[in-house]
This record gives sequence, C-alpha cells and structure tokens, in this order.
Amino acid sequence: MSLPAPIFADVEAAAARLAGHAVVTPLLSSPEIDAVVGGRVLVKAECLQRTGSFKFRGAFNTIAQLPENERSRGVLAWSSGNHAQAVAAAARHFGIPAVIVMPADAPAVKIANTRALGGEVILYDRRTESREAIGSALATKRGLAVVRPYDDSRIVAGQGTAGLEAARQAEARGLGIDQAVAPASGGGLIAGVALGVHGVFPECAVWSAEPEGFDDLRRSLEAGRPLPHDNAGSTLCDALLAAQPGDIPFAIHRDHLAGGVAVDDGAVLSAMRTAFDRLKVVLEPGGAIALAAVLTGAVPGRNRVTLVVASGGNVDPATYIQALNAAPLA
Amino acid sequence: MSLPAPIFADVEAAAARLAGHAVVTPLLSSPEIDAVVGGRVLVKAECLQRTGSFKFRGAFNTIAQLPENERSRGVLAWSSGNHAQAVAAAARHFGIPAVIVMPADAPAVKIANTRALGGEVILYDRRTESREAIGSALATKRGLAVVRPYDDSRIVAGQGTAGLEAARQAEARGLGIDQAVAPASGGGLIAGVALGVHGVFPECAVWSAEPEGFDDLRRSLEAGRPLPHDNAGSTLCDALLAAQPGDIPFAIHRDHLAGGVAVDDGAVLSAMRTAFDRLKVVLEPGGAIALAAVLTGAVPGRNRVTLVVASGGNVDPATYIQALNAAPLA
Repeated sequence: MSLPAPIFADVEAAAARLAGHAVVTPLLSSPEIDAVVGGRVLVKAECLQRTGSFKFRGAFNTIAQLPENERSRGVLAWSSGNHAQAVAAAARHFGIPAVIVMPADAPAVKIANTRALGGEVILYDRRTESREAIGSALATKRGLAVVRPYDDSRIVAGQGTAGLEAARQAEARGLGIDQAVAPASGGGLIAGVALGVHGVFPECAVWSAEPEGFDDLRRSLEAGRPLPHDNAGSTLCDALLAAQPGDIPFAIHRDHLAGGVAVDDGAVLSAMRTAFDRLKVVLEPGGAIALAAVLTGAVPGRNRVTLVVASGGNVDPATYIQALNAAPLA
Repeated sequence: MSLPAPIFADVEAAAARLAGHAVVTPLLSSPEIDAVVGGRVLVKAECLQRTGSFKFRGAFNTIAQLPENERSRGVLAWSSGNHAQAVAAAARHFGIPAVIVMPADAPAVKIANTRALGGEVILYDRRTESREAIGSALATKRGLAVVRPYDDSRIVAGQGTAGLEAARQAEARGLGIDQAVAPASGGGLIAGVALGVHGVFPECAVWSAEPEGFDDLRRSLEAGRPLPHDNAGSTLCDALLAAQPGDIPFAIHRDHLAGGVAVDDGAVLSAMRTAFDRLKVVLEPGGAIALAAVLTGAVPGRNRVTLVVASGGNVDPATYIQALNAAPLA
C-alpha cells in the first residue's frame, strides 16, 4: 500500500513468478461477435484462470514476495469473493493459513469455494460494518499479513500479467491491439492491464467498464482525482462494488487510461448470454461487463482490434439462468 | 470412404494443414475434479474450437485435400448439427457453396448457426427418411463433393489432431497420459484421438463413452465387428446417435481401444453442471459424456492421468437450464 506504483518491468517480473502456477488463458474470438462489432474482438478468458478469475495472478504474486518469516504466520484478505478464493488458493500453495473477511451477501458459490480451498471465512454485514476495520484488527491480533484487493503494487503488477500475456498472444497471431477494455472496481486489474498492454503496444487506448451507478473510475478520470461512486441503486456485478479507485491504481489510471464507460445490468446479462452462445465460456456479471461495453457500442470497435478482458466466471446458477433468458447481442 | 484407415503420420499432416486455421484449444483442469476422481484429469476443451466443436478439424482437413476442380463446385454433408456447422464454416473459408442435410428435430441453435455460416440447409425426418439417401442423390444431381461425418480417412485424421495436440500439451507440462476417454457416435473422433495420443503415449488406454441404449461401439468392441445400437429409449446427447461405428474408424478402434462404457443422461447433466462450476466452459450433452464417465467412476481415474475430450458446446438454453438444476459431481 505504501509501495510506489509499479512499472512495466514489475509486470514482467510477475509473469516470470507466475509461470507454471497461473493458467495461460486463451484469447477467444467469434466471427459473429466480430460481425456485430465491425472489427476484431479478442476475449482474454480469465474465467478459465485458477479459482475462476484473474485474481489468482495478483494474490500469488504478492504472497510469493512476502518475507518467509512473515509469510509463514499466514495471510488475511477482505473480498466480495474472487480475491477471497484467489488468496485462499495461493495460501494453500505456500502451505500457510488464510483468513478471509467476506460480506454475508456474497454469492454462495464464492463463499463455499473459499472455504473448500481451506480459507477461514469471517462474514460481515456490508451495510453496517467496515471490512477494512474488521480485517485490519484481526490481522494485527493474529500477526497475519494483509493481502489487499487492489491498492498494492504487487497486486497491480500480478493482475497486469493478464494484459501482457494477451498482448503477446495477439502479437503471435500477427495482430496489434488498438484498444483494450477491462472492468474496474478498485482498479487493480485495469491498471495492471494498461501497464502490460502498453509495454507491447504503447498506442493502445485503454477503457474501463463499470456498472451504471458504480462508475467511480469514469468520474474520477474526468475529475482528475479519485472520487467515490454514487452507490445509487444496485447491480448484478457483485465483483465491481469497491467505493472508489485505489490510490496506487489511480496513479496509473491517470497516465494510461483513455476514459471509462458505464454499462447497465441488462446489457451485462445479454453479454453473458452471448458468451454462452458464441464463446462457450461461463462469465459472471462483472466478468462480462467489458464484452457488454463493446457489444453495445459504448466502446466502438469498428475497424479496430479490441482486447476485452473477461475477468471471471464465478456465478450462481440462478443468476446464470437470468442470462440464458436474456436476448443475445451477437 | 474407400480410402484406407489413416495412420499417425496422417494425423501429423492434418495438424500441419490446420495450423493457423483451427483453435489450439486449452487443456483445462480443476483441483475439485481431481479430488473427486483421485487422479489428474485433463480436459481438452473442444467446445472452444471454431463452430463450438471438434468437427471443424476433420471438415477443414477434408475440404483442404479436395482437388481444386472438384472443390470449386461445392460440398454436401449430412449431420445432426456439429458436422453441419463445421462443413459450412470450412466451405466459407474456401469460398465454396455448402449444402447440409439436417434432421428437422436437431437443436434449433445448430440449424440457425449452420444457416448463419452460409450453409443451405435441407431438413429431413429422422424417423422416416434416410439422410444418406437424400444427401447422395442431391450430391450427384448438383455435382457436390460429399464430406462424410466419420467414415473417411481424412475426417478421422483431422479429428485426431485434437488428441495429438492434447498429448503434446500434457508433455509440455511434464505429464504422461495414462488413459483417454472420448465420446463416440460414428467413431471418427475417438479413432483419431487414439491415433494421435498413441503416437506420443503408446501405452495409453483409450475408452469410448456413449449414451445408455446407444452404446454400439462398446458392443462392437466386445463382438469384434461393427454392430448397431439398440435404439432403445432416447438420450439428450443429440450428437451421439449414429447407428453404428463406421468401417474406417472401426478398423482403428479394434487395434487401439481398451473398451467402452455407457453413461445415463442424469450423469451427463451433472457433468455439464460440474463443467459450469469448476471449468467455466459450456458443454453440450454429448460434449460432457466423457467427463461424466470419469466423474461417475465408469472409467476409474484413481492415481492416473486421464485425458477427457470435451467435444462440443452447442446447446440450447433450455437444455442448459436442466444441467444447471442438476446436482454437480465435483
């Protein structure tokens, strides 16, 4: 947290650290999606990452760098679900305990998976309690190292390996990436992706996709400083509820992002349905929001090569059935 | 059809022909699936192949080898859906017409996709008409080259690239494959996979997975000659209804297969649900049957490395909702 913002070399170092531990996820495409968009769309399928989301990259990269005497006492994280599973899985890899503070209303599948991965889950009430306060107090009491969800240089560099990997995969196909779209909550993923992609394609325009009413990064980019979201209404994107961009990610956002767009839940469900029809991957709402931004034209893709980060696939069947009943966008 | 059975070198030649055209599909795994099975399970995700199934491999490999003067007149295929889409897509690649004879009760998504890929679809009644008779007459009349679904050396060699690719991917991870399980209908896929895997791992035991009541390959292997299935009852596995193993595939089955197992629809739906939960890929019923065979223990996987071919993901939302409501197996 007090670490400075990472640079491209940190993303490269993270990629070396993750080699053989993280999945090299495929870059998927569909002629039907390309036809609707009027350009090439490359979907980085992080739903196929270990624990079902990109979060494993940052968690592993961070825990791997803890000093041995600190790491051996164990780690603590707070998370609505994907960071939780990632920290539990990475901690298990290193054979250390993991305590995870999760909202009581997180998707059941995320809570169950975190427990199955050996995490000790502490539930809190999202409306009345502060997860940072609960987590920090518990970490101090038990001597655990806190693995922050986004406001940490090691986390940002780890998430960035998804962008670097995608850029190298596009390059291997003889394609340049004109623009990239990734979801944003605390902004760790999109900061890292921007670093990773810009290391290979410096001219790439990077856009954030956020749920309507929770588009704090879009507003922050316009204001030039981190602002909280409206917290207006609700969203199906349970993974994208962080109150505002983290300070370390935002230092990168300011330099590397072209702007942000907001997407409504209906478009998100339709993008999940499109991924079912055309890509054959399971996306959770937050994992489909960047695809929704491109399919609806919120980020126009005509005559461009667009990288879409499909960040996760941890979704309950009931929510997925809503997506199956939605109209596809391609 | 009158071509002799292919050998491993034909699979290698097909792989060279397909390079840059077919997707190199990932080999997926899940700690939860491994825990249930008691061994390592590697899932070859052919649902992520172009047109959503392995069939693109054989169709492209066959059409690529047609003499130019024959190919330019166009191709004809009969298929319940996946071969249909594959032939239409490969024909479009070569810029030639494709006529596809499909059963009127094929999944709507498969018929719609075949048409969207530019195929001219001719529907027939599966209970009262012969697709071979309709197709052969039409091919003669219009001068079209027939692209058979399985009883053709070029088709078998093309499908075999899925097995060869999986074997090389396992090798790159330092793993040997002890056994492989693939679905069987006419038997083209599993014949090719056996050739491809045995080229790298000659001791690998290869098992077929078929729907209960449609397990003609299992019965044929026991009898030592191609036998038709019982046609008893019905199955959700619309892709696995061929009446009996093809002659060319069976010449390979006899030498290369360890045996066959039959799996009921309930286990297939549960395996589809498990793929949703643990692998984040969309599988159609026929595409999940090999995974079901391993998860139920019909093919035991304890202390072994098992390759599972997940052959396709073209499924209607209504059928997928049945799977989401099934109990997972891991």
